[in-house]
Amino acid sequence: MKQFDLLIRNGTVVTASDTVQCDIAIAGGRIVQLGHDLGSAREEIDASGKLVLPGGVDAHCHLDQPMPDGLKMADDFESGTISAACGGTTTVIPFAAQEKGESLRAAVADYHRRAEGRAVVDYAFHLIVSDPTETVLRDELPSLIRKGYTSFKVYMTYDDLKLNDREILDVLTVARQEGALVMIHAENSDCIAWLTDRLEAEQKTAPRFHAIARPMAIEREATHRAITFSELVDVPILIVHVSGREAVEQIRWSRARGMKIFAETCPQYLFLTASDLDQPGYHGAKCVCSPPPRDRANQEVIWDGLADGLFTIFSSDHAPFRYDDPQGKQPGGQEVPFRYIPNGIPGLETRLPLLFSEGVGGGRISLNQFVALTSTNPAKLYGLHPRKGTIAIGADADLAIWDPQREVVIRNADLHHAVDYTPYEGTRVKGWPVTTLVRGKVVAHEGKMQATAGHGEFLPCALPEMAKPRYRTSGGSL
Amino acid sequence: MKQFDLLIRNGTVVTASDTVQCDIAIAGGRIVQLGHDLGSAREEIDASGKLVLPGGVDAHCHLDQPMPDGLKMADDFESGTISAACGGTTTVIPFAAQEKGESLRAAVADYHRRAEGRAVVDYAFHLIVSDPTETVLRDELPSLIRKGYTSFKVYMTYDDLKLNDREILDVLTVARQEGALVMIHAENSDCIAWLTDRLEAEQKTAPRFHAIARPMAIEREATHRAITFSELVDVPILIVHVSGREAVEQIRWSRARGMKIFAETCPQYLFLTASDLDQPGYHGAKCVCSPPPRDRANQEVIWDGLADGLFTIFSSDHAPFRYDDPQGKQPGGQEVPFRYIPNGIPGLETRLPLLFSEGVGGGRISLNQFVALTSTNPAKLYGLHPRKGTIAIGADADLAIWDPQREVVIRNADLHHAVDYTPYEGTRVKGWPVTTLVRGKVVAHEGKMQATAGHGEFLPCALPEMAKPRYRTSGGSL
Amino acid sequence: MKQFDLLIRNGTVVTASDTVQCDIAIAGGRIVQLGHDLGSAREEIDASGKLVLPGGVDAHCHLDQPMPDGLKMADDFESGTISAACGGTTTVIPFAAQEKGESLRAAVADYHRRAEGRAVVDYAFHLIVSDPTETVLRDELPSLIRKGYTSFKVYMTYDDLKLNDREILDVLTVARQEGALVMIHAENSDCIAWLTDRLEAEQKTAPRFHAIARPMAIEREATHRAITFSELVDVPILIVHVSGREAVEQIRWSRARGMKIFAETCPQYLFLTASDLDQPGYHGAKCVCSPPPRDRANQEVIWDGLADGLFTIFSSDHAPFRYDDPQGKQPGGQEVPFRYIPNGIPGLETRLPLLFSEGVGGGRISLNQFVALTSTNPAKLYGLHPRKGTIAIGADADLAIWDPQREVVIRNADLHHAVDYTPYEGTRVKGWPVTTLVRGKVVAHEGKMQATAGHGEFLPCALPEMAKPRYRTSGGSL
Amino acid sequence: MKQFDLLIRNGTVVTASDTVQCDIAIAGGRIVQLGHDLGSAREEIDASGKLVLPGGVDAHCHLDQPMPDGLKMADDFESGTISAACGGTTTVIPFAAQEKGESLRAAVADYHRRAEGRAVVDYAFHLIVSDPTETVLRDELPSLIRKGYTSFKVYMTYDDLKLNDREILDVLTVARQEGALVMIHAENSDCIAWLTDRLEAEQKTAPRFHAIARPMAIEREATHRAITFSELVDVPILIVHVSGREAVEQIRWSRARGMKIFAETCPQYLFLTASDLDQPGYHGAKCVCSPPPRDRANQEVIWDGLADGLFTIFSSDHAPFRYDDPQGKQPGGQEVPFRYIPNGIPGLETRLPLLFSEGVGGGRISLNQFVALTSTNPAKLYGLHPRKGTIAIGADADLAIWDPQREVVIRNADLHHAVDYTPYEGTRVKGWPVTTLVRGKVVAHEGKMQATAGHGEFLPCALPEMAKPRYRTSGGSL
Repeated sequence: MKQFDLLIRNGTVVTASDTVQCDIAIAGGRIVQLGHDLGSAREEIDASGKLVLPGGVDAHCHLDQPMPDGLKMADDFESGTISAACGGTTTVIPFAAQEKGESLRAAVADYHRRAEGRAVVDYAFHLIVSDPTETVLRDELPSLIRKGYTSFKVYMTYDDLKLNDREILDVLTVARQEGALVMIHAENSDCIAWLTDRLEAEQKTAPRFHAIARPMAIEREATHRAITFSELVDVPILIVHVSGREAVEQIRWSRARGMKIFAETCPQYLFLTASDLDQPGYHGAKCVCSPPPRDRANQEVIWDGLADGLFTIFSSDHAPFRYDDPQGKQPGGQEVPFRYIPNGIPGLETRLPLLFSEGVGGGRISLNQFVALTSTNPAKLYGLHPRKGTIAIGADADLAIWDPQREVVIRNADLHHAVDYTPYEGTRVKGWPVTTLVRGKVVAHEGKMQATAGHGEFLPCALPEMAKPRYRTSGGSL
Repeated sequence: MKQFDLLIRNGTVVTASDTVQCDIAIAGGRIVQLGHDLGSAREEIDASGKLVLPGGVDAHCHLDQPMPDGLKMADDFESGTISAACGGTTTVIPFAAQEKGESLRAAVADYHRRAEGRAVVDYAFHLIVSDPTETVLRDELPSLIRKGYTSFKVYMTYDDLKLNDREILDVLTVARQEGALVMIHAENSDCIAWLTDRLEAEQKTAPRFHAIARPMAIEREATHRAITFSELVDVPILIVHVSGREAVEQIRWSRARGMKIFAETCPQYLFLTASDLDQPGYHGAKCVCSPPPRDRANQEVIWDGLADGLFTIFSSDHAPFRYDDPQGKQPGGQEVPFRYIPNGIPGLETRLPLLFSEGVGGGRISLNQFVALTSTNPAKLYGLHPRKGTIAIGADADLAIWDPQREVVIRNADLHHAVDYTPYEGTRVKGWPVTTLVRGKVVAHEGKMQATAGHGEFLPCALPEMAKPRYRTSGGSL
Repeated sequence: MKQFDLLIRNGTVVTASDTVQCDIAIAGGRIVQLGHDLGSAREEIDASGKLVLPGGVDAHCHLDQPMPDGLKMADDFESGTISAACGGTTTVIPFAAQEKGESLRAAVADYHRRAEGRAVVDYAFHLIVSDPTETVLRDELPSLIRKGYTSFKVYMTYDDLKLNDREILDVLTVARQEGALVMIHAENSDCIAWLTDRLEAEQKTAPRFHAIARPMAIEREATHRAITFSELVDVPILIVHVSGREAVEQIRWSRARGMKIFAETCPQYLFLTASDLDQPGYHGAKCVCSPPPRDRANQEVIWDGLADGLFTIFSSDHAPFRYDDPQGKQPGGQEVPFRYIPNGIPGLETRLPLLFSEGVGGGRISLNQFVALTSTNPAKLYGLHPRKGTIAIGADADLAIWDPQREVVIRNADLHHAVDYTPYEGTRVKGWPVTTLVRGKVVAHEGKMQATAGHGEFLPCALPEMAKPRYRTSGGSL
Repeated sequence: MKQFDLLIRNGTVVTASDTVQCDIAIAGGRIVQLGHDLGSAREEIDASGKLVLPGGVDAHCHLDQPMPDGLKMADDFESGTISAACGGTTTVIPFAAQEKGESLRAAVADYHRRAEGRAVVDYAFHLIVSDPTETVLRDELPSLIRKGYTSFKVYMTYDDLKLNDREILDVLTVARQEGALVMIHAENSDCIAWLTDRLEAEQKTAPRFHAIARPMAIEREATHRAITFSELVDVPILIVHVSGREAVEQIRWSRARGMKIFAETCPQYLFLTASDLDQPGYHGAKCVCSPPPRDRANQEVIWDGLADGLFTIFSSDHAPFRYDDPQGKQPGGQEVPFRYIPNGIPGLETRLPLLFSEGVGGGRISLNQFVALTSTNPAKLYGLHPRKGTIAIGADADLAIWDPQREVVIRNADLHHAVDYTPYEGTRVKGWPVTTLVRGKVVAHEGKMQATAGHGEFLPCALPEMAKPRYRTSGGSL
């Protein structure tokens, strides 16, 4: 009789489709059998009363990303992936970002150096294209795509990253030719600058004015514009970190026209509001991210979009900047105008528990939807499925074993990132990932690391099936 | 070492979530192991080069249903379920229809008598409520729901079946109280009658005028009204057999408002158009169904809705009336005015191959979406999952083994229903279910029955999780 | 040199198009010259510092209308038209209502008897069709239309008045054939009854539950349905007394599809909210009307619709029921369940000052829009223009001379209707019609009647140009 | 007894509100009396059987405007205004265009020199802001606005004119502060450039590709973006030359949100289609304008928008480039790639007859709507009313006397502009302006000039009432 490396017994096994009782047999880091009475294994985990889920795939997070102006991210691949693992996530896809004037290949090489030997969970790379020169468009991008970097992000705002409309069309054209997927940060840069200047002129520089400088209309406009680009080039796109009703309406409108516009949202749009930027003292700076959190009504719109399939994926947009830090949100104890506060908040470790507790526990989404949004769909969208994102024969044994009854009060002291705060401090959740396995190995258990840096491997991504243009040229203009 | 009843080897196993290579071990009619090298079995099927899918769940079909005016359905439970099995479907959910003035319980009892010992695939019953008396609402419906009849259909048209607005609200109220799901046939009865009278007054009685008497606006209006009822009662509903753009727009609008409005469509809205009702001679009568098929542009809208998740399920609405038959569409060779042509067309056996060929083969939907739409989702929506609708440990071994390369020209002569025509005569499809198993037993293979009448069992349905009202009273008025 | 009957000098003369300084010369009850230095007249009015507007046309009001259940309207043609005149209105169009089982002609004859010799301003009749028998459709309606009764109202609610869908289609068909205009009261009768019964079952019978029994969704649904009827018959319609966003959205949607759907709103949807039905004691009964007032946000939507042209006319829907009265809102001092409170509120005299003050004074609409909405458009829509509704050569000298600076606190004691309350008690307005002329004769001045009952004449209406179907059959299904 | 300068007798006098029979007495260039039997005059015109309309106000036309690249407009103020007069137009508002690097004041001074002593009808100036420097924004614009240049246009495309988003926001801010109105040419510049380059790379350079390089989506996007700017600054705007459904939908959406977004359309979107750019030879170049004409379905959408009030004004966008001319559309007989064809077509003289014939004659709009769209509304929108745009006491006697029965086949040979073609060659219209008066003087009669160059006067514009922001800050973000 066969001997497996590991048997997970008596758990409730959940996929994007099904919820069943069965054992999981693991060998060579992969799932090899599902059923009952599967035989023996060198190790066993008793998952009685537990849920066994595919490990989370966090498809939008920033780790050790070089930043302008001497800014430094708090998390490198080690602290970041430990935090991920402790939060039930087994794959991360951070960004290899091109600096303007730099080669994309160089950015990728540099980023590999940063990841190499440090990650505890597996990782792939998105590219950030900030300078789409002829060389980048004709040579680097196609060649990188073929090597497994099949998704890239473009920005419609941020001075050091943003592309103009023409450049975005050029990048989308490469994506269409090669079958890659483009992620778009959709906010109107000029409008933000104009509003910011006006606010500063009126001495309105406190953190809360960050949200006022980036109203919903500005995100809606850029979303509409991005959809137009997708229509002209006839290629699917993903709108990242959608924050509320007006952007959602644009995406629904595009879908009703038969377009393939994918959408992502993040915990901050479900659990924070703009008023969190208006905390006493300067603490609102801890919630500065873009787009900014909106209000309760917009939170409901985001929940509705998660429930009804508008959103394909749910990511953290983890962007780790310390609060008390020379390069932090309150640099050297200084209260700087909101314009200078680094944009982004931490969330790798809390992404899954927050959604599980309020989404599944609150009856807003099913357990299968939870798995789809946080693991299966991102794996599919970025060409990692079925190796990642599911519990099925042949898949990597990337698993998160959840105790659905565990009640936890989120405390930054208990988290594993290198950021000195969490915006969710004090939030009570029910349900927690107690054990996380990557390729059959327990990497985290009860908040303790069980693996060493370097366990995580780089994952080249296939071309994503989901991101193929529609069978017909629905919107193409030519 | 364990001995299974049956091993299906080397197939590509598909669920609503995943597509993997593995073997399936079956014992006691259930799936007990998935993996490779599972052991031995008394029987084996080699599925090399084949797809192994969950058997189809046809959640909208009419079999041996008592009809007014001496009309008789051609298919009883035997011919109907043989036809289903030969088309890859392993569960059917036809309708136990209350006649006005009759008790619902009596209808159910009668319908059990018709099914008993005749079906070759498993079956559950929807109820049709045509006379919601106090007794029906207070006693019969709640008691039947608790016994496993958890879904019921109401009609907004057809004189012998239709309910008025007040009655529909009453029925929805019971559904909300009990957790059942209401299916709604949405067409405005008065408008149809008015248009029909006008057409007849102008001697416009040929089959093609059936479509003109039921324009899209009439379906749109009733869909909007049904959505309003759902909002007032705060209970999800399913709009059945949605035919085109205007109804789709209403449903999208309701979703954008956070409502849980489910939608179903059928092959006739993808593969037929109103011009099929205008065939030479009287043959257009063969395509008379309600709502009528629309046009090419509306077909595209339906395809878009399948691709992007608007539609939860895809059913046949099989309604078997013979063409040459005293009770048929051309009764006794008579060409009757369209008003008298029985509404409905056959489709149990062709539902899956048509969608597979044009949907999956044509790149419009993924294989996983195909499984979701035709099997997993209907099983979930009607409380039969995970026993039905998936390939997972513990599920019934209801499987359809597909040859994705098999090319077939649809000929009524080759189909197994008792209807003397198919509206898809001559249509070429690629991909065909060559072997169908129900609870581990091959019931059909290469178009031949392998089981005897009575193999099919009645399935009481659980209350459907999916049809629970939203966590918040989104639209409730009280 | 010519001698006129009357010269109005030095006023600011306003039409739907222009605002100019000039004198108005009147002879034979008509406007015969406009300009300066026009000559002499037997009488002169100095309008220095005043606005001279076309007298208001109140196209939706109920006077001395026979009611079921012994209910009696407080205003007959005398008190009603005196009230109108004192509020700057010079033409009223109340309803000759058919009782079920009665002939329409008889209703018209009866209504003429009620009006004859009593009105002080001119009047036309709308018909109410409550029983569209063959005789009514084939004979009475066409013949009455040709005699000058060119508009009729149908109800989708109220047991004694409502038509079913089929009947409405039949009535619309006559309108299309004859060129008449149909007004539709759009609320879903069954939904109201269902909600009312549920509320009563919970002892929720206070006046405020009237609004809860008629939520916006119910008005929206009926509006959508009415639009569908208009589409099928291909004839313009008018949706009367639109109360808020959801109905407005349906109308905007129909317009965007190229349909001719006219809309009316009333003061109660600008100046009252549902909370006015929740006044201490039983006083909320004074604001019971249908559809009910909504909330502040819906008021803004109505203002937007007035400003941007969605609404063609602005009427009072004056429905005069006394509060303390055996047939009143609190019959014999009894606090009856809301179901029994007569629907409707008084408003003939306050319609214009309220809109003038808050609309023109508040900068929401221009003075020309005010004239269009309250006078010119209703005159056009009902075939009375250019005899009524404007200040132009040949038009009847129906004028309201406004003091735009006059501040008035509305007090029922100062109003001239026979109702014992006004829902606007205590409201402060700026701008008041100080002098009203009908056909060149001052009928009211500073709140005093100057004419005798019988000055008002019956006006047969022409077929309305505006209500012609579009040049093309935009939505017609046949 | 008074003696007038001129009496126009027996005509049917039409305003935006009314249509009545009366005489018009004119003195000192103004309308001084309306009525019958007004007295005697030094001159009389018998307008029996004719319509007397306010002369047209063409609020969008280009005359003698300095162009880049040696391009020269064919019409100066003399030929242009003669053409206008012969087409029933009595006021034109062309553009004083700032060149980048130039002062706005200088552009205005230069433009006055070009107009001085040459125009036969009255004229005002819009400004074109192409370089919004600090000086322009702080000093020149405010000062010019106060001097009567109260409207200005910004371009979202054309390299020599376009502003970026930030600059548009700055210009809108000045408009809000000063009460001026901004007109926006809404097409996405980058998208056009990208498509043009791709087409050229495929040798697709014929005139018809001009339309393919500027698809509806590109106009829709820019329209949405412009609406967003209007929302952020909280100031009304005018979207000029709207071409079809998708832009119309954006404008309808903005209106439904309570925004004041004005819209203009032009004859080319009613009477031409993209296929007119595909005429044999190179003649399609004659119809090259931006946005390009669309198709029949879009024409219907534009007609619907004219009928239902979506469009406030109807202008020509007259842009006079000769076909056979060194600086023309086929420069020196050369067939240049579409990118180099001057954008714009002639239309000053044909604007009114085309709309009259097909709009009023075809039953799509009323005669009063015709007057509103072509004369009253543009006069109001640009601060020229009531001096211009109506027939009322005190208004300038700018009149067009129309023979509604006159049938004319449009021939360029009969037109009075200096362009060598009309895109409407051979079009048959019914209704023609036979006599045109400016300030009481006949300037054109039966296609012959009756006035000398210099009769036309410059009109400083008041701040437009219509363009005031809504009473509430509906969309303002700050």
